[in-house]
Amino acid sequence: MSKNPNNHLVIMAGGIGSRFWPLSSEERPKQFLDILGCGKTLIQLTYERFKDLVPAENVWVVTSEEYAALVSEQLPEVRDERILREPCRRNTAPCICYVSWHIKKINPRANVVVTPSDHLVADIPAFHKAVADAMEFSAETDAIVTLGIKPTAPETGYGYIKADLSIASSRKKNIYRVDNFTEKPDLETAKQYIAIPSYLWNSGIFVWNISTIVNAFRVYQSKMSRQFERLLPVYDTPAEAEAIAKCYAECESISVDYAILEKAEEIFVYPVSFGWSDLGTWGSLRTQLPTDSYGNAAVGAQIDFHETYNCMVHTPGLKRVVVQGLDGYVVVEKDGTLLICKLSEEQRIKLFH
Amino acid sequence: MSKNPNNHLVIMAGGIGSRFWPLSSEERPKQFLDILGCGKTLIQLTYERFKDLVPAENVWVVTSEEYAALVSEQLPEVRDERILREPCRRNTAPCICYVSWHIKKINPRANVVVTPSDHLVADIPAFHKAVADAMEFSAETDAIVTLGIKPTAPETGYGYIKADLSIASSRKKNIYRVDNFTEKPDLETAKQYIAIPSYLWNSGIFVWNISTIVNAFRVYQSKMSRQFERLLPVYDTPAEAEAIAKCYAECESISVDYAILEKAEEIFVYPVSFGWSDLGTWGSLRTQLPTDSYGNAAVGAQIDFHETYNCMVHTPGLKRVVVQGLDGYVVVEKDGTLLICKLSEEQRIKLFH
Repeated sequence: MSKNPNNHLVIMAGGIGSRFWPLSSEERPKQFLDILGCGKTLIQLTYERFKDLVPAENVWVVTSEEYAALVSEQLPEVRDERILREPCRRNTAPCICYVSWHIKKINPRANVVVTPSDHLVADIPAFHKAVADAMEFSAETDAIVTLGIKPTAPETGYGYIKADLSIASSRKKNIYRVDNFTEKPDLETAKQYIAIPSYLWNSGIFVWNISTIVNAFRVYQSKMSRQFERLLPVYDTPAEAEAIAKCYAECESISVDYAILEKAEEIFVYPVSFGWSDLGTWGSLRTQLPTDSYGNAAVGAQIDFHETYNCMVHTPGLKRVVVQGLDGYVVVEKDGTLLICKLSEEQRIKLFH
Repeated sequence: MSKNPNNHLVIMAGGIGSRFWPLSSEERPKQFLDILGCGKTLIQLTYERFKDLVPAENVWVVTSEEYAALVSEQLPEVRDERILREPCRRNTAPCICYVSWHIKKINPRANVVVTPSDHLVADIPAFHKAVADAMEFSAETDAIVTLGIKPTAPETGYGYIKADLSIASSRKKNIYRVDNFTEKPDLETAKQYIAIPSYLWNSGIFVWNISTIVNAFRVYQSKMSRQFERLLPVYDTPAEAEAIAKCYAECESISVDYAILEKAEEIFVYPVSFGWSDLGTWGSLRTQLPTDSYGNAAVGAQIDFHETYNCMVHTPGLKRVVVQGLDGYVVVEKDGTLLICKLSEEQRIKLFH
């Protein structure tokens, strides 16, 4: 697919990723870290995944003020005026409303893909094809398209989308209407879900044309929409920051899933498979990295395992690590801080800071 | 006890302590490290224990050439000509033979206590009394006196001394003849030993007057004794190093226990109790340090334990450590090297280097 000049990319990069402590910190959250030990940070990998689909000048990053310098440093190709600075955290709906009105001012014919900045994709060609297909569809319709990942395990950490497989879109036979969105299920429910082909993981990757999403905000979040529409004259002017500060302070903190997706009619899901993970936990990183024959994944120092199984060791700040007799632990070192924790208890990591 | 000008102290400081890796290394073995996290190294603590018993000018340290600079640095009060440099490792008999002939040259009336450099003593007043008593006894007799520690646990890592409790020395009622020395026992044997009052741990602390030990070498290690006696004229001259290099190369590598104690007649043991440990392993350090109510001992960084029991954490090189869900492990960091190992497997640590 050639880079259509109407194609825009929005990278949402305001998260704080506290479950990856001590590697991540509020000063430098997960998306700005080389979690995989590959020499590139997650936001850099995210940017690269879209490089062949979206012109560099159409790449937008919405982040908090404090991370804007990190974005500039790690994505030098992104123009400074495309880095939108959120003055406070308000979840994804205000973020998408803000950037959408901004894009609409610049190009009312824009066709947009929105992505988190801190996820992992293993199969890049399959990813390209999926995004290109979805953008082709959204360019020609009023559809709000979500990419739904075909589940590979009964994950309890993901939201699920139920596709209505009986009604394929007329234009793209493999894009389906959404039946409903569901919360993160318990293990029993997750096991039932993955036995049914219509249940898909909600990837948080959305595709739409700019009129569609702006209209959806007008209809389903009319107050929020008016607040950002009113600011059209100040976008890309010195008055933007102050106006946005005031506007954000008044915004409800709400996710785009609640604010729009669960309310709108024309919601579609595109079932895809491209080795996706939200890398939400050390345990999910372990399953994404190459492991030795005992299930151990290692990033960093010279790491020797003895009688050790199913561990995730991430210690690039150390020179040498010897681990004996652990099963199912995460060991992380960063800047002189060491964490040793059972993977089964890792949801508590954010409490350890 | 005043410092008798005939009292001499010999600190044996040639060991390499490989079981404390990665804290210890061949470049800086255990005796030169602040194992306890108290601000002083083990050899400094050893020196201080004898400060009130032996004049500073009578303190001798026998060490290998490579550690002489560390000794000077850590014990600036010890005169350089009292630091005897061993050109190669030959166990304790040549070490004691060498320093004994050296001392005899300087003071034929010397009364000597010999100690390892890397052990721990908790009760210093009790220690003072024990050494003073033993030295008083050895000054007046031809006795070779060992300090025998009253066992507190069925230790399999220590050699045992069996005292003949029926025959107390006539001068000091609580110093006894030795029945025999035994190797490190297995657990069953150790349990039997500690049920019998006559079994004591061999502390490796010896007390004798200089004539007694020199005569014992003459009788039981005549060849070795002659080799060091022959060098009397070169001690404290520029020719000493070369002569000792040649002499050591020809020496048998043998412990003083085998070479003298198990052969000689006039061997006594003084049963003592002063909170002694040879600090041979991380596990033994754990039992010597203050622990929290879950049995965890910590030296170093700000260390937080969660659901963690019976662990030894030694991480002064780190700023912060969080340990969750470990039972019976050692966690050590030094200069960017991290070791995590079950305490029950710690005898393998020396294989991990």
